[in-house]
Amino acid sequence: MATIIRNTGEMSAAMALRRRRGETIGLVPTMGYLHEGHLSLVRASRRENDVSVVSLFVNPIQFGPGEDLERYPRDEARDLELLEKEGVDYLFAPTAQTLYAPDHSTFVDETALSLPLCGASRPGHFRGVCTVVLKLFHVVGPDRAYFGMKDYQQLQVIRRMVRDLDVPVKIRPCPLVREPDGLALSSRNAYLFPEERRSALGLSAALRAVAEAYEGGERSTPALVALAQEKLAQDRRLDADYLEIRGAESLEPLDVVDRPAVVALAARVGKTRLIDNIVIGE
Amino acid sequence: MATIIRNTGEMSAAMALRRRRGETIGLVPTMGYLHEGHLSLVRASRRENDVSVVSLFVNPIQFGPGEDLERYPRDEARDLELLEKEGVDYLFAPTAQTLYAPDHSTFVDETALSLPLCGASRPGHFRGVCTVVLKLFHVVGPDRAYFGMKDYQQLQVIRRMVRDLDVPVKIRPCPLVREPDGLALSSRNAYLFPEERRSALGLSAALRAVAEAYEGGERSTPALVALAQEKLAQDRRLDADYLEIRGAESLEPLDVVDRPAVVALAARVGKTRLIDNIVIGE
Repeated sequence: MATIIRNTGEMSAAMALRRRRGETIGLVPTMGYLHEGHLSLVRASRRENDVSVVSLFVNPIQFGPGEDLERYPRDEARDLELLEKEGVDYLFAPTAQTLYAPDHSTFVDETALSLPLCGASRPGHFRGVCTVVLKLFHVVGPDRAYFGMKDYQQLQVIRRMVRDLDVPVKIRPCPLVREPDGLALSSRNAYLFPEERRSALGLSAALRAVAEAYEGGERSTPALVALAQEKLAQDRRLDADYLEIRGAESLEPLDVVDRPAVVALAARVGKTRLIDNIVIGE
Repeated sequence: MATIIRNTGEMSAAMALRRRRGETIGLVPTMGYLHEGHLSLVRASRRENDVSVVSLFVNPIQFGPGEDLERYPRDEARDLELLEKEGVDYLFAPTAQTLYAPDHSTFVDETALSLPLCGASRPGHFRGVCTVVLKLFHVVGPDRAYFGMKDYQQLQVIRRMVRDLDVPVKIRPCPLVREPDGLALSSRNAYLFPEERRSALGLSAALRAVAEAYEGGERSTPALVALAQEKLAQDRRLDADYLEIRGAESLEPLDVVDRPAVVALAARVGKTRLIDNIVIGE
């Protein structure tokens, strides 16, 4: 049975006890509404650690005004059931009031990798992400923490934060999980009407086209980007936010794909903003 | 004998070993050039912990352009000798290159208590302080960390950071230490020419005048501030930067001293910027 904990003091105390027993701790930070992507992180944590903690918290400070904080899908009972099946030890599900004092005033700012891509469309987003992730690390004190490559920029920003602030947590990236037809798993897929879901396949199709052209020898970033944009433009339901090819680790712009690179894109389908990515040249 | 450690991996490993033995760790973060104020922190750490670590690092990112980073006094041999006498276990003395990667890009921003007082005169200062203190906390993993009330705003900013980010470290404030004639101990006192040192006594004298007026029943902040400013103005060698009375914990402005408050001031004597403070109404 997973133990559900809702306050930080109790969570820290439980983990201190486990650590004193010499047990290792894995943390999977999530916003809930779990899918197979999350569960793959849980399984990785279970394989590598004595104790696995899943946090479930829709972090208000990483949502901008007009974003989908209020309508973000929530179903704690279903999440708990899924986590029980995976043999998770602790579910940490604090309220926003527990995690943020009314006069909360301290934030963690990653100031380089956070700027392009989603950082440009969602100002303050990665500041919110870094702040809550570091809080969770302090409360739980994990040996390892698991992040999906679906949120590719988030993963790199968190790795940079961990390096820069000497955070004593090992970051374990886990592969993006897709539906059989290519759609990247996301809690936000729940927003999609059937015809929108069909259009959403355009994201992974555009990325596949880039990967194929790269495999075929194309190295020019503008040419690869143009190819993907052409693909996306074929569906009038898709409204691309960005589509860029950048260095895989530091997210620097590339003229030519002469090193491992990420092809990252964000697009709106109706009211839903989706992201996807693929790594090439590894 | 104190063990001198210069790199973060070695420091973390040494502390992990101590923790596994069930020993508690106290950390005293300093910029070196130690005086009795620092040593009082070391003694407090020695009383409360099994292991005491002093860090010695002149943190470049908390100095602004044109400030005294280059001329900040350094004497590691003397510091080490003083710490040996106090029975310190570890001296952590990293280089700036060790602590900051060339592409370091993550900072901790306290956005409320950092704004007035020294934060207004020294933009970016507390960001630099919070960032390095959190790094030191992550590297050393202390149970308790010791800060002098001489740097009063710094103490409150760090307490706020620790609260907001759930940092698992207990912050122990220690009283400001003064010379017999009232001058607050500071490594920067080494900059003072004899006649400047005499002028510098005006800082503590102004604070004492405020404390006496408060004891005598004066509660009006403008009246108390005017009194101190009058004192400071008597010496043309003193150039006040700020003199303010604010709430002791959240540093909110006060019209009337109806709660514990800090009287904080900064002033230049020649090229040297000094700070001092006194808490009233406790």
